Amino acid sequence: MVLRDFTTDHSACALNTATLGHNLEGYGAGWSVERVIDACAARGLAGIVFWRREIGNRAEEIGERVRAAGMEVVGLCRTPFLVGSDVPDRFEDDARAAVDMAAALGTTVLTIVTGGTEPGTTGVMDSQKILAARTAKLAEYASQFGVSLALEPLNPMFGGNRTVLMTAADALRVADMTGQPNVGVAIDVYHVWWDTTLADTLAHRGQGRVLGYHVCDWLEHTSDMLLDRGMMGDGVADLPAIRAAVEATGYRGACEVEIFSSNNWWQRDPDDVLDQMVARFRKVC
Amino acid sequence: MVLRDFTTDHSACALNTATLGHNLEGYGAGWSVERVIDACAARGLAGIVFWRREIGNRAEEIGERVRAAGMEVVGLCRTPFLVGSDVPDRFEDDARAAVDMAAALGTTVLTIVTGGTEPGTTGVMDSQKILAARTAKLAEYASQFGVSLALEPLNPMFGGNRTVLMTAADALRVADMTGQPNVGVAIDVYHVWWDTTLADTLAHRGQGRVLGYHVCDWLEHTSDMLLDRGMMGDGVADLPAIRAAVEATGYRGACEVEIFSSNNWWQRDPDDVLDQMVARFRKVC
Repeated sequence: MVLRDFTTDHSACALNTATLGHNLEGYGAGWSVERVIDACAARGLAGIVFWRREIGNRAEEIGERVRAAGMEVVGLCRTPFLVGSDVPDRFEDDARAAVDMAAALGTTVLTIVTGGTEPGTTGVMDSQKILAARTAKLAEYASQFGVSLALEPLNPMFGGNRTVLMTAADALRVADMTGQPNVGVAIDVYHVWWDTTLADTLAHRGQGRVLGYHVCDWLEHTSDMLLDRGMMGDGVADLPAIRAAVEATGYRGACEVEIFSSNNWWQRDPDDVLDQMVARFRKVC
Repeated sequence: MVLRDFTTDHSACALNTATLGHNLEGYGAGWSVERVIDACAARGLAGIVFWRREIGNRAEEIGERVRAAGMEVVGLCRTPFLVGSDVPDRFEDDARAAVDMAAALGTTVLTIVTGGTEPGTTGVMDSQKILAARTAKLAEYASQFGVSLALEPLNPMFGGNRTVLMTAADALRVADMTGQPNVGVAIDVYHVWWDTTLADTLAHRGQGRVLGYHVCDWLEHTSDMLLDRGMMGDGVADLPAIRAAVEATGYRGACEVEIFSSNNWWQRDPDDVLDQMVARFRKVC
């Protein structure tokens, strides 16, 4: 897999557009994709991670515009759930469509949030096997386009209906089970900050396997499990230690700021959010 | 430490009174402690775990009544937070008062929920060291009364302000750090069901160290992280596997049913809750 290196020409900071509330109803400032691109370029960011809903049928055009602005499309969020009771009909078609969009955008990384425990099973081990088989099949398709799949472990609070990967060790095990070289993992501070085995796991099993690093902070008093992430420096995560553990695997890609925050950051002017994001990134990450 | 064995004369099932809503405002049926004791004895339960608020200054009387009914007081919940920003003033006095109450009740197990990340630190490792020192001091006091301290790891969603122990491995490490023989761990299905390393951790490091086993279920679609626990069999936890891992450490104590459920089980008639609890315990645990 190709390891990107933004550290020479750009800051290592990238924007995941979720941080601006991605213009969901009631959130965000209604910025166009073009305005987001220009605002990130003006601040010297390494790149942008988009969500599929923002791209529509303009993937090639948007990818070219990002690169023309001196940045990269760092990744795309995400496939449909691949396991559990909320797997959509025709999920394989939809997952391939996500790969197609990643390829058209010109990004090499497509993120997978797995979905939950498969009906008729308990725990997560049986579901991990199903996930591995389905991910392997998708990875074969993705390999034609140079796209890699990043399995993202989620905080265990999302077990049941959103994930069967709770730790980096879980995600690396399933990546191994696929037997496909273009399957790796994404490490998100929000999901892994609490894991005292993270550095060991990445050091021993994560070499060359990290495809994305997502930063935010875990607020001491988290009021909403999904939509109350903190800006870096406002919480209790040991950000330098986590970044060091990620970069010890050889990861030289961007640090992608992804902050779901319906009552705070999503209520603010996007220019202010971006300015604070860059300032905090330089100060505490 | 003394390992209790209820498997000969009684069912291994015990009630944690939280399952009946412990008569918090708006929950529970207003049952007296005496009525709870009689209802548990009538169903052949192994014993009861109480919360301090229910005991007041009647600890000896209540303990005697439980034993007269052919059961044991399986444990007491819980010490004040010992670490983090919500540690109360005079927490050491309050923690010793909890030990005194456990001793007066005639139980050997007092549960510790640790509290969160210590102010001025990040992550959990620094806080675990502080926790170990404070737990060691309390354990010395508790040893005079034959009381053991059970460090309970919580689901990582409770990191930040409620716990610095996210896994059985975390709890066993801190128990080791105390250097006190009367410090062990409590294993609660709700908090550990997702941990694919649990059985290995307990097999290699948990021999004789488990002081309590708490059962419920993790609902696939959990609507409230604190108060939406499921009855055994209604969720996705692999209950037989977790119990086997716990009992492989030599644990022969009760399986304590602890279900915080403000919108479901706490709204029901306590007699029905107890009947279903016993039936489900026999069927799926």
